[in-house]
Amino acid sequence: MKSPILAFLQSLHARYAAVSEGKVADYIPELAKADPRLFGICVATRDGHIYEVGDTRCDFTIQSISKALSYGLALEDRGEGHVLSRIGVEPSGEAFNAISLRAGSGTPFNPMINAGAIATCGQVLAKDGESRIQRITRYLSKCAGEALEVDESVYRSESQTGHRNRAIGWMLRNFGILDEDPHEILETYFQQCSLKVTCADLAVIGATLANQGVNPITGERAVAQEYVDNVLGVMATCGMYDWSGEWIYRVGLPAKSGVGGGILAVLPGQLGIGVFSPPLDSQGNSVRGIQVCMDLARELSLHLFNPSVVPQPALRLSYNATQVLSRRRLPSVAMQAVRRYGDRIRVMELQGPLVFSTFEPVVRALVKQAPYCRHVVLTFRHVVSADSVSLRLLKEVRDQLTLIGVNLICCQAGKITRNIIAAGIAEESVFDSEDEALESCEDILLHEVMRGPWKEPQPVPLNRCTLFCDCDSDDLALLYQQMPLRNFAEGEAIITSGSHADELFIVVSGSVEVCLPADGVKGRQRLDVFDAGMSFGEMAFLDKSHRSADVVALEPVECRVLTRQLFETLDDQRPWLKIKLLSQLANQLSSRLRQANIEISALRS
Amino acid sequence: MKSPILAFLQSLHARYAAVSEGKVADYIPELAKADPRLFGICVATRDGHIYEVGDTRCDFTIQSISKALSYGLALEDRGEGHVLSRIGVEPSGEAFNAISLRAGSGTPFNPMINAGAIATCGQVLAKDGESRIQRITRYLSKCAGEALEVDESVYRSESQTGHRNRAIGWMLRNFGILDEDPHEILETYFQQCSLKVTCADLAVIGATLANQGVNPITGERAVAQEYVDNVLGVMATCGMYDWSGEWIYRVGLPAKSGVGGGILAVLPGQLGIGVFSPPLDSQGNSVRGIQVCMDLARELSLHLFNPSVVPQPALRLSYNATQVLSRRRLPSVAMQAVRRYGDRIRVMELQGPLVFSTFEPVVRALVKQAPYCRHVVLTFRHVVSADSVSLRLLKEVRDQLTLIGVNLICCQAGKITRNIIAAGIAEESVFDSEDEALESCEDILLHEVMRGPWKEPQPVPLNRCTLFCDCDSDDLALLYQQMPLRNFAEGEAIITSGSHADELFIVVSGSVEVCLPADGVKGRQRLDVFDAGMSFGEMAFLDKSHRSADVVALEPVECRVLTRQLFETLDDQRPWLKIKLLSQLANQLSSRLRQANIEISALRS
Repeated sequence: MKSPILAFLQSLHARYAAVSEGKVADYIPELAKADPRLFGICVATRDGHIYEVGDTRCDFTIQSISKALSYGLALEDRGEGHVLSRIGVEPSGEAFNAISLRAGSGTPFNPMINAGAIATCGQVLAKDGESRIQRITRYLSKCAGEALEVDESVYRSESQTGHRNRAIGWMLRNFGILDEDPHEILETYFQQCSLKVTCADLAVIGATLANQGVNPITGERAVAQEYVDNVLGVMATCGMYDWSGEWIYRVGLPAKSGVGGGILAVLPGQLGIGVFSPPLDSQGNSVRGIQVCMDLARELSLHLFNPSVVPQPALRLSYNATQVLSRRRLPSVAMQAVRRYGDRIRVMELQGPLVFSTFEPVVRALVKQAPYCRHVVLTFRHVVSADSVSLRLLKEVRDQLTLIGVNLICCQAGKITRNIIAAGIAEESVFDSEDEALESCEDILLHEVMRGPWKEPQPVPLNRCTLFCDCDSDDLALLYQQMPLRNFAEGEAIITSGSHADELFIVVSGSVEVCLPADGVKGRQRLDVFDAGMSFGEMAFLDKSHRSADVVALEPVECRVLTRQLFETLDDQRPWLKIKLLSQLANQLSSRLRQANIEISALRS
Repeated sequence: MKSPILAFLQSLHARYAAVSEGKVADYIPELAKADPRLFGICVATRDGHIYEVGDTRCDFTIQSISKALSYGLALEDRGEGHVLSRIGVEPSGEAFNAISLRAGSGTPFNPMINAGAIATCGQVLAKDGESRIQRITRYLSKCAGEALEVDESVYRSESQTGHRNRAIGWMLRNFGILDEDPHEILETYFQQCSLKVTCADLAVIGATLANQGVNPITGERAVAQEYVDNVLGVMATCGMYDWSGEWIYRVGLPAKSGVGGGILAVLPGQLGIGVFSPPLDSQGNSVRGIQVCMDLARELSLHLFNPSVVPQPALRLSYNATQVLSRRRLPSVAMQAVRRYGDRIRVMELQGPLVFSTFEPVVRALVKQAPYCRHVVLTFRHVVSADSVSLRLLKEVRDQLTLIGVNLICCQAGKITRNIIAAGIAEESVFDSEDEALESCEDILLHEVMRGPWKEPQPVPLNRCTLFCDCDSDDLALLYQQMPLRNFAEGEAIITSGSHADELFIVVSGSVEVCLPADGVKGRQRLDVFDAGMSFGEMAFLDKSHRSADVVALEPVECRVLTRQLFETLDDQRPWLKIKLLSQLANQLSSRLRQANIEISALRS
């Protein structure tokens, strides 16, 4: 099936394929050789999916588009303060090759005009045995996810004819904006502009900027996260020279064009666009490139200030422990206590990136819930990132909660776990799984409300096992005699999924975990935990199907085993005992189904 | 418990409370009276929550902040093209009161400088019996959610001393930017600048711009959605005059200040900020206001290009009909068929705002799943908005799916339902509830795979009812005789929640719905549907608890009733029948619990 998004790009390509306006750059012979019919459109999403139409894989020189990126490298090498002292960030209102330097200081207005771009090259350091151009090439290559190379013949032409740029270089040297004579810096600049890229490279570079500076194809960080907003900022305000205000107003995409015929546009946080078509308008921008960007922005509503694009609140779901319990099956008295007092345990599932405006509603919900609960479990399973602001707020809200006696627990944070701990949340309040977190809260709650230990003393006598609670002493004597005792070591498999189900187990001491076995994708997934006094394995036992899960001993375990043979014998020998057992089994299933329905309802809310 | 966000604003207020720099505006005596100690900070979230510290509720005049808003009204009155022909959107690089008009056309560079703002007043229409200032006042009042009024004495002073602005007005008249003599337009401009606001008003106006133009407190639309990006655009590029580039680079918040001491800043899609402190710096900006905005932006990472703020993909969950079934309990043969072929029905739960970049991953998932399914159900319950681009893509993907024989269904779209239908999705493919949608897909699937009607012919004889499938003819004769038949009209309550549970029902013809009764917040919530041949009410019947839900006849219904009395009599009279019934009940519960566990696992994935 064809993607309608690809179909849209194809129609856009067809719309402008026949346009013959514009003129291929001819200030050097090498550029004049470009085939004016070449035309490619490429969109790369923030997660690395590529849509492309036309000539998206043929090389051309990057030219001025490189200015935005080498600015990022200069910031990484020197820091924002130092770079701002040499190069401004104000739109100049002038053309790209104007020698616009501020009166007095001689600082170029911004890094997108030639003067600013040459000054930017001067800020890049040669280090670690690499020259400036080697470092710039490696930096851009990481952004593109491809090893880029200089087009030597374009570079030689640029160098031979770049008289105006040499004048600019010496002016910058005159004002002390360059710390050294401009020769090598200018050669770096000419080489940087002569790097060969494809239309697809431009889209991926754009997606890298949209993706916090991480190349979404290679997964490698290309631009330091702290400088991504600076690069996008200068593209937004100065990227289109004296047309920048109108460009942002009408098109709303930070962008940069080059005389090689390329345009790079970025929708921050969302996607990158590359367009390639050599014929240029009088301002030096690709005629079809500009048209395609304008149409894409308008027809896909890609405007930077599109008011429909709002970050979602990070609160995905909120419920309490009367609705969703830990996987551990509690003895019925404990179960009743959790049903009654479980609203003191509040679980909030978070999602998406945590930044101020997504996390603020979570803080607000915590402040509102605090008087009604004793425990708050924050689940991070669906959280993709947490910035320093949200982590600071998390720590502060934890401190406030502690003051009023509310326990805050974080769980399932994956890679974010270490940031949560670094932010000041104690390790003992951070759990790998939500289930462990819930269990820990339930333990504290049960200890409080049941005023002491709530687990059955082990081994549990048969008459205290839930399944046998209606049995009289005759029943128990028979069962005691006919149900073999079996022992399992910690970690031993008691039941294996897929096997026949001819036995029902009653835990006399220890506890067991029912789980789906690990597959290639996921680890072992816990379904239930049964403590001493409870029975397991009844579902397949009853409907005579195969076991659907593994059961593993969590510690040394002792079980009584009710075999199918015994169970069937009861029909004739002791039908009333059979009725008691079936009633109790049906009761247990009914109770678990009730709880499952409550949980489903909470999860679907 | 105190919100750490409020605590942060209080510490920020304390940080600058003692600052004595700056000078209250004194070009007219009325402004010079302002108390320099007044200082307020207010943040309003996109959903209307307000955090405020200090003097957030005292009046001052809005001054230049009004320029951004009356620009929005001018766009609504005249359209973008007309307004752009009179007023540019390029940063001027000059001070606020420069008479910067473009050579030749005489168009002011942008609407944020006085010349552009006066020209903007001229674009606002007097209509529907309202003068220009009345319409501007009403427009700003809607943004603030308060009836704003002109401070008459400030207005008179402004009018008496506004010589330079009068000169600008006549220059605009000279170039034909104003269509009439400037007197009334200038008075409108002076009055607009003299509107009284509070710091909290500014924050709410900001939140309105952050919230797609809808005031989040009143819920009323204040700014046309299509022009919100234009207003934010000129604030971003021209709001801070010749400091705009650096402001966006460093602070990253579209903003506007006024000589009354107010600053309005907006983080698009997220929040609004109002700061008030009368002493001004040499550029006419509030000294403390600028500091507070810079600190807020830096310490809460509120930068417009903050790379961590990424819109989340709209795909919340994806599962198939083997995992999550409709609430209808199917006869076991049909149930087996759904378990086997249910992966042909794919359900995707969507969330958040649907725009190109959030909906694109959904399109991609649909293209990927298409070869493996026959039905796709898109659930819109968690979708907050859908723009025209996402609706167009939805329609196009539906068309592509239809070509390859896949049925696309939309459900639970609430207010968005009409937009989905308007986009070209047929009404019969749009369902109110996900359950109805699933049921409809299951019906088609069952019809296909079972090659004909799959429901039991009604009335269902007792031996075809699931509960009695193991019974012999003696059992059936007894049951037939002792179980009364009861009829219910469509809509009649069969079971009421809270009542005693002394009966178990077997549906002989018709179908019933188990549901939670409607409360103040939610409508009736469907839990289960039982068709003829199935039994219901067994859970409370077994554990002797009260009924936890209502059961209502969906059509004329005939039931057999198994009373507790009969059920208990069986213990002695026919224990083997009792064993059969209990085994069957336990089996049914076991099967439902199995399915519930699969569903929980899918919902938690």
